[in-house]
Amino acid sequence: MSGRLLCVVGLGLIGGSLLRAAERAGWKAQGAATSSADVGAARAAGFDVTSSVDEALRAAADCDGLVALAVPLPAVADVLPVVARWAPRCLLTDVVSVKQPVATAVAHHAPAARYVGGHPMAGTSRSGWTAGSADLFAGAPWVVSTDEGVDPDGWAQVARLALDCGAQVVPATAADHDAAVARISHLPHVLAAVLAAVGADGGPLAMALAAGSFTDGTRVAGTAPELVRAMCEGNHDALLTAVDDALGRLGAARGALASTGSLAATIRTGHLARRALDAARSSDRESLGQVDLSNAGALERLREIGRAGGRVVALHGTRCQIRRCNRLRNTTAPG
Amino acid sequence: MSGRLLCVVGLGLIGGSLLRAAERAGWKAQGAATSSADVGAARAAGFDVTSSVDEALRAAADCDGLVALAVPLPAVADVLPVVARWAPRCLLTDVVSVKQPVATAVAHHAPAARYVGGHPMAGTSRSGWTAGSADLFAGAPWVVSTDEGVDPDGWAQVARLALDCGAQVVPATAADHDAAVARISHLPHVLAAVLAAVGADGGPLAMALAAGSFTDGTRVAGTAPELVRAMCEGNHDALLTAVDDALGRLGAARGALASTGSLAATIRTGHLARRALDAARSSDRESLGQVDLSNAGALERLREIGRAGGRVVALHGTRCQIRRCNRLRNTTAPG
Repeated sequence: MSGRLLCVVGLGLIGGSLLRAAERAGWKAQGAATSSADVGAARAAGFDVTSSVDEALRAAADCDGLVALAVPLPAVADVLPVVARWAPRCLLTDVVSVKQPVATAVAHHAPAARYVGGHPMAGTSRSGWTAGSADLFAGAPWVVSTDEGVDPDGWAQVARLALDCGAQVVPATAADHDAAVARISHLPHVLAAVLAAVGADGGPLAMALAAGSFTDGTRVAGTAPELVRAMCEGNHDALLTAVDDALGRLGAARGALASTGSLAATIRTGHLARRALDAARSSDRESLGQVDLSNAGALERLREIGRAGGRVVALHGTRCQIRRCNRLRNTTAPG
Repeated sequence: MSGRLLCVVGLGLIGGSLLRAAERAGWKAQGAATSSADVGAARAAGFDVTSSVDEALRAAADCDGLVALAVPLPAVADVLPVVARWAPRCLLTDVVSVKQPVATAVAHHAPAARYVGGHPMAGTSRSGWTAGSADLFAGAPWVVSTDEGVDPDGWAQVARLALDCGAQVVPATAADHDAAVARISHLPHVLAAVLAAVGADGGPLAMALAAGSFTDGTRVAGTAPELVRAMCEGNHDALLTAVDDALGRLGAARGALASTGSLAATIRTGHLARRALDAARSSDRESLGQVDLSNAGALERLREIGRAGGRVVALHGTRCQIRRCNRLRNTTAPG
């Protein structure tokens, strides 16, 4: 736990879970939201919650608290000027699913804030305070940004919050994060939508014959379209790169099939990639040693560790304990 | 059951299951295979099995039996001349996963055979006689070809075999079958391979963040590459069309994202398609009446019923009982 006050702005699924998990871990935490339903439900559950975001931010500024923005991406640009007004120099993090657009908005609207971006990769298909749980982050990866200019002490505070909530910290730059999630979360949603549509174009006969491969490949097309759009469109630039890579590989498969009749390269490459993922997930956690945040270049070192698949699993003072860990937790929908 | 002798050529997973299921349903059945392991195991289990395909085909010809080819697609062109030699006018079916290439090979190698193509859409990830089961086809769709020139009496015999094995008969032309499975079975394997490769290109960070959408979307990339290639490359022409449709839709998504920043059309279309599939699967079976095979135009009528998502669930004399039924059975790997 930290002696610092945590101020959670937004009390939906993620913000509400964060307030619960942090308080359970011993943080002094206050929530604020404009949704009267979320505020009412959180108050009824006994949490310190206000419907005045201004007031909560003033209180955080008075005691140098940690402010966590837990609002949807489209609302970030509306909330940041309020942060700049009432808590301009606060230690600031967020839980939004893309990182570069938030960092850009912070630089524009709240340039004096000490910003350390975050993204807990956990969720459910439901939303709002009532869908939340103090256990939501248990075992989940929680990306904490290691961009140029991040203060190691601020980074440690945000990493401490993530670890106290039961998550494991994946250190990554905003750009690396956005590029990775475009490939493993946003592209899968686009391909599922494309596959569902191409299958449906085959008519009732095709649907009557559809079996496991089609069912699995289209599962996430069942997710609410507004959630998928917000996630994918918010990561516009990185997703374009991932879609282009997919178009290139699919075009190459098409060319090989048309010219030689063979899909050998496509199928073999995909098979090896999937087997490598399975192997990594079934392997034991491997210790990768420690990184001391008080040393020069610590964040650069953490960034490299994140790129190599490592996670911070504990923080003792300024010493980060690192492990390689690709094992999945069970619930990460709608990821 | 039928009074006709069934001659199953090939005793791997599908052929071995067919022999077991048909005999259990009361058919007089003989198996033949060149694999001494499969022949030995089938004999040890008490089945009438020979290692001489010639002899089995001669016996079938002597009593106007039904010959079922249960060999892999690449072996079809080798077996058909043997059929033409020993049982040139036999009633002939097959269980191969593509239908047009088999029909073309039959027309070339065994033109006098009374051919009615078949495809039971069931399987497991294992192979060989020992992997088979009399229950393999229970509840599965079994496509029986309704192409021009098919004899309604021969069609009824093959449909009877499928129904006796516990399957439901989906009437379809070879071309309609191949186009449908390209969309709902072969394209999903190609897209899974592409997604797995694009994800792996994101390196260990991307793999460490991969969650449910990536895991589901790449599952079938774990299938043995030689099985996937045989299935996809054997349906070369229809798969090209499906891949082109996917390229077109993915390219359109790319264009919309780059120009307007919106994926609205892609995500909405995919979502509606997936919801329609879920709705069809959860709906009750709807009776679509009967078709009498002794009436003129019966096969054309069945073909239209198959296109509309109907299945033959029972055969009383020449009367086919039809239902709409999209409910999935549990096991259809590696489909």
